[in-house]
Amino acid sequence: MQTDTISAIATANGIGSIAIIRISGDSALSIAKKLSKKQDFSPRYATLSTLYDAQNTLIDESIIIYFKAPYSFTAEDVVEIQCHGGYIVAQSILKATLDAGARLANAGEFSKRAFFNGRIDLSEAEAIAGLIEAKSEDGAKILARQMKGSLKEYIENIRDEIIHILAYSEVSIDYAEEDLPQDLISQIENKLSKLESSLESTLIASKSREGLMQGFKVAIVGKPNVGKSSLLNSLLNYNRAIVSDIAGTTRDTIEEQVRVGSHLIRIVDTAGIRESSDEIERIGIERSLEAIEDSDIVIALFDGSRVMDSEDKQILSLINKHAKDKEVLFVKNKIDLESLFELKEREFDLELNSKDSVVSLIDALKSIMDKSNISDEIMLISQRQVSAVQNTLSNIHEAREPLLDQELEIFSFHLNEAIKEVSSITRPFENDEILDKMFGSFCLGK
Amino acid sequence: MQTDTISAIATANGIGSIAIIRISGDSALSIAKKLSKKQDFSPRYATLSTLYDAQNTLIDESIIIYFKAPYSFTAEDVVEIQCHGGYIVAQSILKATLDAGARLANAGEFSKRAFFNGRIDLSEAEAIAGLIEAKSEDGAKILARQMKGSLKEYIENIRDEIIHILAYSEVSIDYAEEDLPQDLISQIENKLSKLESSLESTLIASKSREGLMQGFKVAIVGKPNVGKSSLLNSLLNYNRAIVSDIAGTTRDTIEEQVRVGSHLIRIVDTAGIRESSDEIERIGIERSLEAIEDSDIVIALFDGSRVMDSEDKQILSLINKHAKDKEVLFVKNKIDLESLFELKEREFDLELNSKDSVVSLIDALKSIMDKSNISDEIMLISQRQVSAVQNTLSNIHEAREPLLDQELEIFSFHLNEAIKEVSSITRPFENDEILDKMFGSFCLGK
Repeated sequence: MQTDTISAIATANGIGSIAIIRISGDSALSIAKKLSKKQDFSPRYATLSTLYDAQNTLIDESIIIYFKAPYSFTAEDVVEIQCHGGYIVAQSILKATLDAGARLANAGEFSKRAFFNGRIDLSEAEAIAGLIEAKSEDGAKILARQMKGSLKEYIENIRDEIIHILAYSEVSIDYAEEDLPQDLISQIENKLSKLESSLESTLIASKSREGLMQGFKVAIVGKPNVGKSSLLNSLLNYNRAIVSDIAGTTRDTIEEQVRVGSHLIRIVDTAGIRESSDEIERIGIERSLEAIEDSDIVIALFDGSRVMDSEDKQILSLINKHAKDKEVLFVKNKIDLESLFELKEREFDLELNSKDSVVSLIDALKSIMDKSNISDEIMLISQRQVSAVQNTLSNIHEAREPLLDQELEIFSFHLNEAIKEVSSITRPFENDEILDKMFGSFCLGK
Repeated sequence: MQTDTISAIATANGIGSIAIIRISGDSALSIAKKLSKKQDFSPRYATLSTLYDAQNTLIDESIIIYFKAPYSFTAEDVVEIQCHGGYIVAQSILKATLDAGARLANAGEFSKRAFFNGRIDLSEAEAIAGLIEAKSEDGAKILARQMKGSLKEYIENIRDEIIHILAYSEVSIDYAEEDLPQDLISQIENKLSKLESSLESTLIASKSREGLMQGFKVAIVGKPNVGKSSLLNSLLNYNRAIVSDIAGTTRDTIEEQVRVGSHLIRIVDTAGIRESSDEIERIGIERSLEAIEDSDIVIALFDGSRVMDSEDKQILSLINKHAKDKEVLFVKNKIDLESLFELKEREFDLELNSKDSVVSLIDALKSIMDKSNISDEIMLISQRQVSAVQNTLSNIHEAREPLLDQELEIFSFHLNEAIKEVSSITRPFENDEILDKMFGSFCLGK
């Protein structure tokens, strides 16, 4: 079906020692021969070669590796050109591959071909895509296992179990002379409960581990002039050098990021915090509410040198109402002055000019984030996967009543729907739209 | 001498499909074996393997290629690990190589080893470093040839020629019974002139091609409120999409960049142009002067709807005095209003809201930049190379007078100095400081 040859730069943009151009398709080898003027390439053997463009001008000296079909990432003929890094050289070679007959690959197109050619299933493809954008080591390790099939295995077990229940109940119905015996119904109910609790804990664990993948969103809330901006700066300065190391992390976003241990903290609503002092005055309760709702962890900041006023109390009440399922750190600032009130629960006294004080706050953040890592388990890593599991779960749930009522057709219908839903995680039924959407979100060259 | 094993991420930071970790040194192979739990690797053969960290946790599935000494970039044992891209996976694998006994490589350390092991000379090493940071296709092509030894060849020819002159004159002196005959002196003078003119044109060509390597620096000058900021925005908008494509180009600089054809324009002193209107008022003649001196091309902007005033004339006089060796484009803005004066020379009428008007200005910039590309020649690509050629040239120059005066010891001294200088481009005499400085400016993993 897909026999045209695609090409893309597979390494990150920017200054590096090496870049890779990847070509996949029937013409991959002939394109490599044209650029290199070499007669042949031994499969998987790294060959040093000069490369020339369509005008016969020397572009670079590169290493060429030919992966013969089907023993390649896409199961097609694949050629990798390892050239000198930087923007221009890789672009020139990419252009030469296009001049020689390749087409620029769409985002995710290499993975899509790997999927269609049966090299990987969808859960593995998503794990690969997630691995590339992983924001923490622990998250990456979960993804590495899922890339090797751990989620696939879990999902296929669930699917087998539903099929088993369905087959078991249908066989029993066939043999039953009248109504289903109560003990058979109890057995089936029992099996459904086990499935439900397994899927529910997967959903909960996945939710609690989102920060491992995306970074943990931290909201700093507090009334104006309480020191939010200074706290932000202290957190950023704590690890500024390492953060600036991560290319592209903050581009096009209005958030600040800081790496803490093996985790990434994303401080949301920074636009608000960073705004001019006039603006800060106008930022009211609504903005704090938005920040809280969008966060995983809330830092509630108070001025310890003044008595609590109505605004402080509004913040406290917001947190009581809207941060029930979040971790909250209560922090009292300006403790170099006489402290005029006490906070309860998790309280930190903060002296922003003291390094110890900032470090103890960061340690508290760290221990919250560490809790989310139970590294032996799988997690759902895309909204697509989460929705499929939620739909599986609700179909199993809806099968219960018809089972008790002995409406067995409806019972079967829901279990069949559950099978369809859970199967879609690894092997969706023909639905080009879903596939285009999924692979289209991958990075170029993948 | 250097037997420890170094490791670094060799691809650019950021989101990409593939990243490469490069390891070089005696333990490279054993580190690869430890991470992959594989028994052996066939040289140059791309092997797919799972990788584990020191805690025996799966990190990734990667392709490992072993380059057996001396057939590698550094002439040492080298292992390349092609892992899934992104920041975290590559960092985890790098960390695993360090845990397994490698040391984090310094910037340029791979190239330094390649140099010390005789794989490349200094001019080739500099060409590789330059290639990675090249800002234009034409520049990259010159560098690709120099990486393959074109500059080295030119420099060695110059060196051989000086040695030849020295040998020739010394032999002649030995055989001469009294003073050197006039025709012999003329012959030598002639040879020296040829060398001088070759080195001089190399210096001039290199200077005119600096923009190919670094991007062309464009200064926009004009009195306050003449439309400098709007012109900057028009230039940036012309090609905004392509520019944002180049990761990292504008980070940490106070300049804006725009790609025009195969060239990169760097608009300098943007900090000034971008400053608030109050600031602009305070920016006077000094700042314009700095911008002109730091640029390759000057755009002098005037308000055509008003008569020339003393400030405009100051700008014109600045340009006459300080932009003699630069290209200057005189641009009259606000031509939708009645024009009240004429400019001479290269004049452009600019209507910033008209796309045609901006495009014609860009075409003018393009033709200036295209002139600098005479692609058959070599160029000096570092201050180190320029200084060495300048010193070679001045020593040859200083050898002339003693030749005429028959002070042959001084003549020989200067030619010997010239040989030393020109040799330093490809093979410096033992000078660790120069080498450390040079390789230290390379990117990591190179």
